[in-house]
This record gives sequence, structure tokens and C-alpha cells, in this order.
Amino acid sequence: MFAPPVQRLVTELGKLPGIGQRTAQRLAFHILRVDPEDANALAAAIREVKEKIRPCAICFNLADEETCRICQDERRDGGIICVVEEPSDVIPIERTHEFRGRYHVLGGALSPIDGVDPEDLKIPQLYARVTGGEVREVVIATNPTTTGEATAHHIAAALRERAPDVAVTRLASGLPVGGDLEYADEVTLGRAFAGRREIA
Amino acid sequence: MFAPPVQRLVTELGKLPGIGQRTAQRLAFHILRVDPEDANALAAAIREVKEKIRPCAICFNLADEETCRICQDERRDGGIICVVEEPSDVIPIERTHEFRGRYHVLGGALSPIDGVDPEDLKIPQLYARVTGGEVREVVIATNPTTTGEATAHHIAAALRERAPDVAVTRLASGLPVGGDLEYADEVTLGRAFAGRREIA
Repeated sequence: MFAPPVQRLVTELGKLPGIGQRTAQRLAFHILRVDPEDANALAAAIREVKEKIRPCAICFNLADEETCRICQDERRDGGIICVVEEPSDVIPIERTHEFRGRYHVLGGALSPIDGVDPEDLKIPQLYARVTGGEVREVVIATNPTTTGEATAHHIAAALRERAPDVAVTRLASGLPVGGDLEYADEVTLGRAFAGRREIA
Repeated sequence: MFAPPVQRLVTELGKLPGIGQRTAQRLAFHILRVDPEDANALAAAIREVKEKIRPCAICFNLADEETCRICQDERRDGGIICVVEEPSDVIPIERTHEFRGRYHVLGGALSPIDGVDPEDLKIPQLYARVTGGEVREVVIATNPTTTGEATAHHIAAALRERAPDVAVTRLASGLPVGGDLEYADEVTLGRAFAGRREIA
């Protein structure tokens, strides 16, 4: 029904996550309508990230140079490393402005069923960084999911053995701020109980 | 927070309709993750539509040649023209398989407030086609909105004068099939009453 170039665009847009056939058509018609400069700016931006962005040589976060901006920033505390699954996990943590240390991006979570073993992630590289001497604390901020928890426990156990003087912590689980107790699932609520603290 | 190439991609994706900041980030991280060939196929598809797609010289639908596939198809009935606002309106009509005539894409709807007059649309070109002699019927399929209705009435009045032998029809308004009377708005329900037909 579409001319082949339009169909190709709809097909390519439809491969994006969360973009169904209808949305892909709507986006394609939008691209057809806008000025060529605007459409080509999008095409150029796509090509540019694939050409220029690569993993940081130290922490495996996204970088447009040998190392990422956070690893290059000398005001960041190299004594504390926050371990996350994906580069996209760095954003929400940075947004809190609570963390001034450095990161280590694993590139996923351990999942023996899917054949994801420690060597498939940047776990050996984490051990090398942590045993280097400078690190005082490793904050494990993998997702609070089955695979994320398993990854956290695996790393914690290995670090206790390899670097017994380094503190290994995990982000607190509990009720989301502004959330409603009535709607909390029982696992979260159970965690909130287990992690309860004396009111200061 | 992002490396500049990543930020540029997020910005460009965020310009797409219905794509907010969060979704743009999610799409950007997806593009960062996929194989370069897949990402570049999307970039190439965007460039290709802007290079190759243009308005059909006859009906102003999207075309990758001088005229569109529908105008080129000799099995389509040239005696009946369906008038729509946008190229995207052709798709749902084609999907019904009810219409075997040709199209005329106006490029919008009349809206004096926004300064959209008949000459800003392909309305003069429609008159030229209809008065050419071959056309028996013009089906006006502009949207059932204020501007779409106004456009339909404007064109119908002009065609009655310029081509009195040509039938000018409008798509029926009424209850959507599968819809629930309880949830029908009163304008739609009023149209459904006004357009009621004897049960065959």
C-alpha cells in the first residue's frame, strides 16, 4: 500500500521498542511532513552515536572519548564505585545528586538460564578495579529483580573474599517516596519492614 | 549528563510526535545497543524517504515516481474521486477494500483562523480534475471535525456550481461498528439518527 521507501521507514521504526505498527506509521508520516533538514538531523544523530559512542575504558559507561566524562572528572571520588547493570541506569542515579563517586557498568545481570555468566559481564574488570587499592566502598545498584539480586549477591561474596577491607553495600529497598502503603506489593512492604530504622 | 552525540540523538528523537523525554532516552539507549547495521538502516530509511518521496503529480498522495501507485493503476476507476485531507488518510480507506476509485489529497483542511484558504490546499487542482469530464462522483472524506466539515461544505458548494452533473457525496457519520450506544457522544448519536435507514 505504501511506496517502498515509506514501507521501509515504517518497518525500521517499528523495530524500535514500544513502537507498534500504527505508531511507526504515524512517525513515518511525521518524518515525511517535516523539513528535510529536521529529518536528516535525526538520521545524522543516529549515525553519529553509532560511530562515536563506545564503552568507557575504565567503567564501561557510554563515552565519546577513551574514557567517559565521569571517569575524567577529577572531583568525583574514586574511593567509591557504584555498580549498575546498564549505561541507562547511570542517569537516574546522577539525577539524584546523591552520589559523587564513580561507576562500573556490568552490561547486564547474571542469568545462568540465559547463559549469562560472570565472564560475559564486566565482572572480572570490576574485581580488578576494586583490588587496585584506592576503593573503600562498592555500592551495588543492580535492579531489584531476581537476576539483579543474584548478581548483587554473587559480586558481594566474591568481593568479601578478594577485597575483605572494602565495604560492599546495596541500595535500600522499601516504599517509594510518595507511594501509598495500600498499593505496595508484599515483597516491597516486607523489605520496608526488614529495613526499618529508628526515627531520628 | 550524556555525551554530546547521545544528547543530540535524545533531542532529535524527542521532536517526534508523542515521544517525550523519557521515551526518547529509552529509544536512544536501544539504538546504542543494537548492531550498527540496524541503526544505520533506520538512518538510511529516514534519508531515503526525504530524497525519494514527493507528492503525486495528479492526486498529491505520496509517490516515489512522478505519479503514485494508485494513479498508475489502470484497474482503478477514474470516474470516482475520494477527497482526503492527508496522505495518511488514504491508508485506512484502502484497508477497507471498499473503494476502487482514485484519491485527491488536499494537504489539510480549510481554516480561515489559521490562514488556510482554498489556494493553500490542492482545491483548485481538484476542480481542474473534476471538470475534466471523466469524473462521475466525488466522495468527500475529510475528517468529521469542524475544519473537515467546513472544507467538505466549501468543496461541495463549489462543485455544484462548476460541475453540476457530478455527484458529490460525504462519508456517513454514525455509531462506530462494535461501539456502545451508552458511550456515544450526542453529536455522533444525533448524526446516527439523522442518517437512519430502513432495515432491509
